[in-house]
Amino acid sequence: MHILVTGAAGMIGRKLTARLVKDGGLNGKPIERMTLSDVVAADKPAGFGGKTGISSGDLAAPGAAEKLVGDRPDVIFHLAGVVSGEAETDFDKGYHVNLDGTRALLEAIRAVGGGYKPKVVFTSSIAVFGAPFPQSIPDDFHLTPLTSYGTQKAISELLLADYTRRNILDGVGIRLPTICVRPGKPNKAASGFFSGIIREPLAGQEALLPVAETIRHTHASPRAAIGFLIHAASLTREQLGPRINLSMPGVSCTVGQQIDALRRIAGDKVAARIRHEPDALVASIVANWAERIDGTRARELGFKAEDKFDDIVRAHIEDELGGKIP
Amino acid sequence: MHILVTGAAGMIGRKLTARLVKDGGLNGKPIERMTLSDVVAADKPAGFGGKTGISSGDLAAPGAAEKLVGDRPDVIFHLAGVVSGEAETDFDKGYHVNLDGTRALLEAIRAVGGGYKPKVVFTSSIAVFGAPFPQSIPDDFHLTPLTSYGTQKAISELLLADYTRRNILDGVGIRLPTICVRPGKPNKAASGFFSGIIREPLAGQEALLPVAETIRHTHASPRAAIGFLIHAASLTREQLGPRINLSMPGVSCTVGQQIDALRRIAGDKVAARIRHEPDALVASIVANWAERIDGTRARELGFKAEDKFDDIVRAHIEDELGGKIP
Repeated sequence: MHILVTGAAGMIGRKLTARLVKDGGLNGKPIERMTLSDVVAADKPAGFGGKTGISSGDLAAPGAAEKLVGDRPDVIFHLAGVVSGEAETDFDKGYHVNLDGTRALLEAIRAVGGGYKPKVVFTSSIAVFGAPFPQSIPDDFHLTPLTSYGTQKAISELLLADYTRRNILDGVGIRLPTICVRPGKPNKAASGFFSGIIREPLAGQEALLPVAETIRHTHASPRAAIGFLIHAASLTREQLGPRINLSMPGVSCTVGQQIDALRRIAGDKVAARIRHEPDALVASIVANWAERIDGTRARELGFKAEDKFDDIVRAHIEDELGGKIP
Repeated sequence: MHILVTGAAGMIGRKLTARLVKDGGLNGKPIERMTLSDVVAADKPAGFGGKTGISSGDLAAPGAAEKLVGDRPDVIFHLAGVVSGEAETDFDKGYHVNLDGTRALLEAIRAVGGGYKPKVVFTSSIAVFGAPFPQSIPDDFHLTPLTSYGTQKAISELLLADYTRRNILDGVGIRLPTICVRPGKPNKAASGFFSGIIREPLAGQEALLPVAETIRHTHASPRAAIGFLIHAASLTREQLGPRINLSMPGVSCTVGQQIDALRRIAGDKVAARIRHEPDALVASIVANWAERIDGTRARELGFKAEDKFDDIVRAHIEDELGGKIP
């Protein structure tokens, strides 16, 4: 089996590649080849015995996508994209990467022809939904994104569904909730604090909390996100039916409940490293985000997220801190 | 006021132009100039005292949209597009005209700059929705088109909303139900019979009915559709809120009720010109169409459709047959 990963150098891309190498196969078939694509060159995966191709560059550039799919990868994980904040501040870049890049990939697949029909797993986002929301966003809620990022993801979902319906490829779009706890350094994303208030205290550092503890949001761990991707690749057209874009399950909880979980697992001293510092801008952005996602269809199709936020904290400690609270 | 109409040579485009000429103004301002664009040259509107520009060509061709908006039309009615059947049989043409054409127009508006922010009224379609449906499709039902045409309309809606949110333009997308009675000759559209069973008998000709009389569908007259367009142009951003794409109201009725209305208005002899000739292909296509559209938001915003199918038959007789049943 030949697997192509776009956005392979990003956090999810690296974790997915590592998991694929560890599993050695996908859908019960051994992985003989991986092609890793991103704007910067991804690292060669450690411990992979098969053939690895590293490709760096702009997916939307003429000929780039054609080159990536020319060798007919069996499964394509399309993770490439610029994040929400960047798509909002740089209109042209957002549309170029998130819309033109996706369309270029789909068109390149169509151009291969000769019965080529890869599985395409696309990471969408709950940003396809926009306020005002019902108490819980159902699977059949309409797409009214309130950001350019959400617009580009929603358009990509629609394209993926049409190309699937026309038998050009077998697509599945998975709408990720906020990934928490993101490893690495703090970033300037408005959602950054959801991870920061867990990650920083566990690393012995102070974390700033810019919103009230009553703010509710839906989360899944990086480990769960990789699980979503692997599971999505296993689903058949028959299982998915015509509605191939799915809201993933997650843990819906308040910031206060996040902090309680941290306290239960790591103690009062760690939890005390969170300092309230209200930020009106962040608070106003977060107020328009989804509180609860109804991932009923995804759960019925076998997608699994954590049951409670404690499990998300534990996944972070196991996967990023070697199982130890420093 | 300067008005640009794309798709001006089509049925709706011609009727809209005629209505604008008759009204002499829009939103209380006199119309001084009209630019009529289509792939073929639209006719110069009779009786218009202002300046008329006729432009023919492909809206998605490089530079074409820039040329159309360079003189900063105040209101743009974007009707241009290939129809459902053609977008399905010709993948490239459908995406080129219905997606690339719309995006080219929006990008050309963005490129004008200098505070230019036109009103853009876009004709979308209930084809943005796809089966399985609830009994009535609510305003917040998700976008899961089952045709490439519906996909292209849904994507255009998303783009229009994002460009509006970013203050590049003031957009409003109106999802038209099936327009009935379409004047002119029978066409090969799967929906053609909905008009044919009224139009042909009134013209003294036999009409074929390919589906059962129990089939239910939502209709609006060409006159109502023009009313939607004019009303849409009058709505402010404040009235619309962030959700600028709206399902239009219409008359939901069965084919049997359509025929009953024809019989009430034109008599048994006319209604007897309908001949049942089942067509499995047409029946299977129509089975996936929306039966009832919940146009609640649109009605609240002042959009008006006919109350019953009798009114749709009467509108056809008045507007196309000089008020007489031949």
